[in-house]
Amino acid sequence: MKRKLRMGMVGGGHDAFIGAVHRIAAFMDGKIELVCGAFSVNPEVSLQSGRDLFVPDDRIYPDYKTMIEKEALLPEGERMDFLTIVTPNFLHYEPAKLALEAGFDVVVEKPITLSLEEAKSLQDIVERTGRTLCLTHTYSGYPMVKQARAMVAAGHFGKIRKVVVEYPQGWLSRLTEREGNAGAAWRTDPKRSGKSLAMGDIGVHAAHLAEHITGLRIQEVCADLTTFVEGRALDDDGAVLLRFNDGAKGVLMASQISAGEENAVRIRIYGEKGGLEWANEDPNNLIVKMLDIPRQIYRTGNNYAAPYTLSSFATHNTRIPAGHPEGLLESFANIYRNFALTVSAKREGKTPTPEQLDFPTVADGVRGMAFIDTVVKSNESNEKWTKFEV
Amino acid sequence: MKRKLRMGMVGGGHDAFIGAVHRIAAFMDGKIELVCGAFSVNPEVSLQSGRDLFVPDDRIYPDYKTMIEKEALLPEGERMDFLTIVTPNFLHYEPAKLALEAGFDVVVEKPITLSLEEAKSLQDIVERTGRTLCLTHTYSGYPMVKQARAMVAAGHFGKIRKVVVEYPQGWLSRLTEREGNAGAAWRTDPKRSGKSLAMGDIGVHAAHLAEHITGLRIQEVCADLTTFVEGRALDDDGAVLLRFNDGAKGVLMASQISAGEENAVRIRIYGEKGGLEWANEDPNNLIVKMLDIPRQIYRTGNNYAAPYTLSSFATHNTRIPAGHPEGLLESFANIYRNFALTVSAKREGKTPTPEQLDFPTVADGVRGMAFIDTVVKSNESNEKWTKFEV
Amino acid sequence: MKRKLRMGMVGGGHDAFIGAVHRIAAFMDGKIELVCGAFSVNPEVSLQSGRDLFVPDDRIYPDYKTMIEKEALLPEGERMDFLTIVTPNFLHYEPAKLALEAGFDVVVEKPITLSLEEAKSLQDIVERTGRTLCLTHTYSGYPMVKQARAMVAAGHFGKIRKVVVEYPQGWLSRLTEREGNAGAAWRTDPKRSGKSLAMGDIGVHAAHLAEHITGLRIQEVCADLTTFVEGRALDDDGAVLLRFNDGAKGVLMASQISAGEENAVRIRIYGEKGGLEWANEDPNNLIVKMLDIPRQIYRTGNNYAAPYTLSSFATHNTRIPAGHPEGLLESFANIYRNFALTVSAKREGKTPTPEQLDFPTVADGVRGMAFIDTVVKSNESNEKWTKFEV
Amino acid sequence: MKRKLRMGMVGGGHDAFIGAVHRIAAFMDGKIELVCGAFSVNPEVSLQSGRDLFVPDDRIYPDYKTMIEKEALLPEGERMDFLTIVTPNFLHYEPAKLALEAGFDVVVEKPITLSLEEAKSLQDIVERTGRTLCLTHTYSGYPMVKQARAMVAAGHFGKIRKVVVEYPQGWLSRLTEREGNAGAAWRTDPKRSGKSLAMGDIGVHAAHLAEHITGLRIQEVCADLTTFVEGRALDDDGAVLLRFNDGAKGVLMASQISAGEENAVRIRIYGEKGGLEWANEDPNNLIVKMLDIPRQIYRTGNNYAAPYTLSSFATHNTRIPAGHPEGLLESFANIYRNFALTVSAKREGKTPTPEQLDFPTVADGVRGMAFIDTVVKSNESNEKWTKFEV
Repeated sequence: MKRKLRMGMVGGGHDAFIGAVHRIAAFMDGKIELVCGAFSVNPEVSLQSGRDLFVPDDRIYPDYKTMIEKEALLPEGERMDFLTIVTPNFLHYEPAKLALEAGFDVVVEKPITLSLEEAKSLQDIVERTGRTLCLTHTYSGYPMVKQARAMVAAGHFGKIRKVVVEYPQGWLSRLTEREGNAGAAWRTDPKRSGKSLAMGDIGVHAAHLAEHITGLRIQEVCADLTTFVEGRALDDDGAVLLRFNDGAKGVLMASQISAGEENAVRIRIYGEKGGLEWANEDPNNLIVKMLDIPRQIYRTGNNYAAPYTLSSFATHNTRIPAGHPEGLLESFANIYRNFALTVSAKREGKTPTPEQLDFPTVADGVRGMAFIDTVVKSNESNEKWTKFEV
Repeated sequence: MKRKLRMGMVGGGHDAFIGAVHRIAAFMDGKIELVCGAFSVNPEVSLQSGRDLFVPDDRIYPDYKTMIEKEALLPEGERMDFLTIVTPNFLHYEPAKLALEAGFDVVVEKPITLSLEEAKSLQDIVERTGRTLCLTHTYSGYPMVKQARAMVAAGHFGKIRKVVVEYPQGWLSRLTEREGNAGAAWRTDPKRSGKSLAMGDIGVHAAHLAEHITGLRIQEVCADLTTFVEGRALDDDGAVLLRFNDGAKGVLMASQISAGEENAVRIRIYGEKGGLEWANEDPNNLIVKMLDIPRQIYRTGNNYAAPYTLSSFATHNTRIPAGHPEGLLESFANIYRNFALTVSAKREGKTPTPEQLDFPTVADGVRGMAFIDTVVKSNESNEKWTKFEV
Repeated sequence: MKRKLRMGMVGGGHDAFIGAVHRIAAFMDGKIELVCGAFSVNPEVSLQSGRDLFVPDDRIYPDYKTMIEKEALLPEGERMDFLTIVTPNFLHYEPAKLALEAGFDVVVEKPITLSLEEAKSLQDIVERTGRTLCLTHTYSGYPMVKQARAMVAAGHFGKIRKVVVEYPQGWLSRLTEREGNAGAAWRTDPKRSGKSLAMGDIGVHAAHLAEHITGLRIQEVCADLTTFVEGRALDDDGAVLLRFNDGAKGVLMASQISAGEENAVRIRIYGEKGGLEWANEDPNNLIVKMLDIPRQIYRTGNNYAAPYTLSSFATHNTRIPAGHPEGLLESFANIYRNFALTVSAKREGKTPTPEQLDFPTVADGVRGMAFIDTVVKSNESNEKWTKFEV
Repeated sequence: MKRKLRMGMVGGGHDAFIGAVHRIAAFMDGKIELVCGAFSVNPEVSLQSGRDLFVPDDRIYPDYKTMIEKEALLPEGERMDFLTIVTPNFLHYEPAKLALEAGFDVVVEKPITLSLEEAKSLQDIVERTGRTLCLTHTYSGYPMVKQARAMVAAGHFGKIRKVVVEYPQGWLSRLTEREGNAGAAWRTDPKRSGKSLAMGDIGVHAAHLAEHITGLRIQEVCADLTTFVEGRALDDDGAVLLRFNDGAKGVLMASQISAGEENAVRIRIYGEKGGLEWANEDPNNLIVKMLDIPRQIYRTGNNYAAPYTLSSFATHNTRIPAGHPEGLLESFANIYRNFALTVSAKREGKTPTPEQLDFPTVADGVRGMAFIDTVVKSNESNEKWTKFEV
């Protein structure tokens, strides 16, 4: 008999922003339920959080190790089906490893791990165990991002020449980490966050989006990272010149001191025949600029006639008719839904469709960590170009 | 012990657009679960729909009467707590009445009923039974609509003089109802839809938004309704001059033949000191235009300092930080969440807060039906002004 | 031998806003020179203004009668070729009449006269004298307005059903006329301005734009005019339901108390197959919304390939390549340039091209005055509909 | 007695785009007249062009040398006052030198010369002769650019940290220079254009804008230039990492293969307290994004109250009231007007005001050429950083 997929959660207790986002994304489509969790390193917070989330007390665990061990002992259909990991970066690898090895699928926040080595190790484990790992590169779940990717792949713009991708934020313009902001505190701490702040937290989203839409791969970078706010240990701003395979070039900017910006992810891609533009803060518009014809705005949810018909990847990730804006939570939910559809298909012995398989995986995670590593290395070098090596 | 609120559903089977929207809105925050339903007049569709929604077979009912009777016999905590009605307009009144009288709270799609008389009758029943009825005027759930309302109420714009509210759509530019579109078919059928198409389906949203934000009440109207598409029985376009209390005036437009428009709800309000503008297709921006100072854009999710601090009604209805767009589904979910919080508070013997009570009720439904009646009457009259009477 | 056209001017002395605009528009293309003027009722202001404009003292006149008489005595090639009238409304008719009868062509600000009777009389004089009269309906000179008109005429949108045209301003939100603002003072004075403030000053632009683009003619109106600011003698806001020939309907709004608005002229037109949208504050974009295909943005100055090629009327009125914004002054200059080209062609015995003849004339002026009359009459009537009669 | 300034012109004959732009800019305000010219290397084209511009035959010269010699012999008040040079880059230095040495002021298109050496030599000549040289960096003439600069200078944004400036065009996405486009032909020819195409033609505008608004100076660059279109001799795209004095950093992009883009100049500047954004294609909006308060849109032509009052540099460069868009031609005309006001003031023995002196000069030209040189040098280097040296 059909049933909802059962989710366990590491992290995401009270006041943890991203845990709540994951739950909304998971719950929205009514196909996933939360059955257990280790919501905080503080057992009292974990217990209270779990109760507020309607998790029974005996499934609220003091720590993730215990949870994974105990859940593994429960019968199929009762135990969790997958584990969502929403802890700070330094606490991704270990629970992911344990869960995968115990037979659970995994959803994990980006960046996938604290280091490239951990990411590669996780990739090995995924391959060895045959489990499914989903990495929540949020912005890749939007319908118009899917449409952009499909149009590039179909050759609509000709050969791609140029990519400009940026992610400016302003929330770290001050020494926010000293003002009681827990998210700022761990992100700016190298031990919990990793080698880079701006590139690790948001640059990695930008890099993923660029490669996801174009299908190109970064091959060399030239980076200039900066710590603008005094007293901060990691970079809070960076600009990177990119060289992709096939002669394409690009610019990537990630900044957390762009005062006044919110989450202004934006990407522009130019090919021989035209260009496209997409922005997170206006996500239902895909601006298409072709040579010789008026600018076009493809909009989420429309039933365009051929040859404008939206890609099946766009429509598969759309819930409501055109003109009713879908936002970040729906984009996030698309990643969960596709993960859930894939996991369910596999459980039923079916082959997932390409649309179902369309979510970021451990391979994206490894590239993300390699991106961080390469950019940091380039920043420390006087040579103009640093090879992107995985 | 805390538990999720239990929802039953009338309508919303396979291919019914709005039922799916209600479920997403209800599920998103993890506080409501679907426990039973009569999802279709076709029992087979109902059964299959219920199973796909993980409802156990014994809670999938052949019709709403049976459902309400049977559920009422179940013990509290097992039976549904409230009934969501997502059938065509002509099927709102009866299930709402039965549910209320059987002790259930109710969520119902707009327009609340088929006629003003039914709406008034429902209002009597709500008063008599003391139950809670929630009307899903979707656009009123957006954070920036809440902010607009709070700013008007605080006198930010001075006395309000002028309101321009519009809801253009283009999906009925052709005889869509003959092209196999079920939603178009019943909406264009007076028996199932009521006296008006454009005004009943979307004009009523525009009227609600105008009154909701300004706190003003329409007192007289002058309407010109049109059926542009040949072969259609009801108006597919209309424009209405409005006179509010306190000397304010307005224009309301609702159109379903504005070819190329999607759901371009927009409202502009002007007072003595400044004006505001808000649009559904760009819902996280509230444009504030004051005399003598630069235009301001208030955006969802910001922690502005005083005197710009966002209203508690705006922040209460926001889930994620600024720059991560929230869309129609979140607006819809806000209505469900506030309804759920109110119902839960009442169950626990607490007084709901003003923020929790902030959802449209039967009173809004009665005004909506009176609006439709008045506009249709005005359209048939040669006199310029027709009194708005409830 | 070729020479510049010679312009005389009535009004437009120091501090007169619109006179300066006319001069910029006239001078921009290097085909018109100012040779004489009666720039103010105050002879000292007139003299000083003329000198600042490099007009020789003997061509600076104390009043327009003297100017017209004296100029008429000068030889062709020395005397002015045409007279620009930029005085308040009540001072349009007389100088226009005298100039036309003395053999001069005329450019006059809108509204053309103080009353419909004067306008009709002027039309008779134009017909009788065979002179050219140009009325500066500024917004009709924009390239994208021309493009809109051409696309409607070519049937791109199918039969037109709906027109929404609006002109909100906020500058009269207070009793500006008592604050030393000369333009506000005469506009709000019925003796100098005419029967209506908002409709006469800006509503007439909106009405012209609607008819200019669609080619439709208003046949009936239902108006509600308001004076919101206490102490003001004329309407400062109005909304009008429109009925055009051929079954089209519309809404026209003109307001000078829409606090915070600048000159937000906007028009939307919907036909059977699609719609268009154009706005003065973003004038180089023509938004085209067709059924079933992505939204298109036609932009000034592009060399689109067929079938998107811009109309010859659009390109004829464009000066610089795409992406270099052209603004109101260029739109205004287009009217002057087309007038000058027409006058020059006539002088050379040639037939002006349709592109050269594309500027508002006395016929537009008569319709404008009839619009004002009809709207004021409708406002005073309890009947819903008032016939538009010229 | 007051008179118009008298302009001579080198280049700008039939079909020369930029010459016509200069004339519109010069004529618009009625303070400059064209009295002579050598409009083309082809004497017949020169003659015909001059006649069409109403220049008498005896002031239409076969070449600029002759013109400068002959004009210098005419009496003051009859001879030209200044020379405008609108030839391709390789023909800037010589006529500028001759004109300055003959006692004429000069307006010259950017880039100022073919090489840095020429630019420095011109700077010496300007200093030696005491003449005025104006360089037409068009985008610096917009009111909202002036406002941005004034706000930065006043410390509104705190210390500046980050500058992102870009100028994407798409018109050279194909081998346009082989398609009969004269402008493309000389721009892509190193002999006539100089060391760089994209950086010399438009990158130099971006660099000027960045320095003009921030008051910062570029100190080091890291450039990656590309020739995307096969068969082209010079770069058609480039991205540059910037380091300014005072710790500020930046990114500059200039591209002529960004297919579908028109002239999308855009600059974003971030300081400790907030940021600003301005774009050429929407030039009357200055978006101000301060920490903790709603986003603000400063708009051209408004009479804001303190502390929002627009800078005198913004209002001085504005012609019409708010909401009436001013465009590129007005921005261009501002440069001419300020140049003319400065030249006139000097002629009258007065000290020009700071507002009158606000136009780009030979010093900007030298920095522009140094920018091109430095970027080309950096592109050829494997070292990450190349010093910006004048």
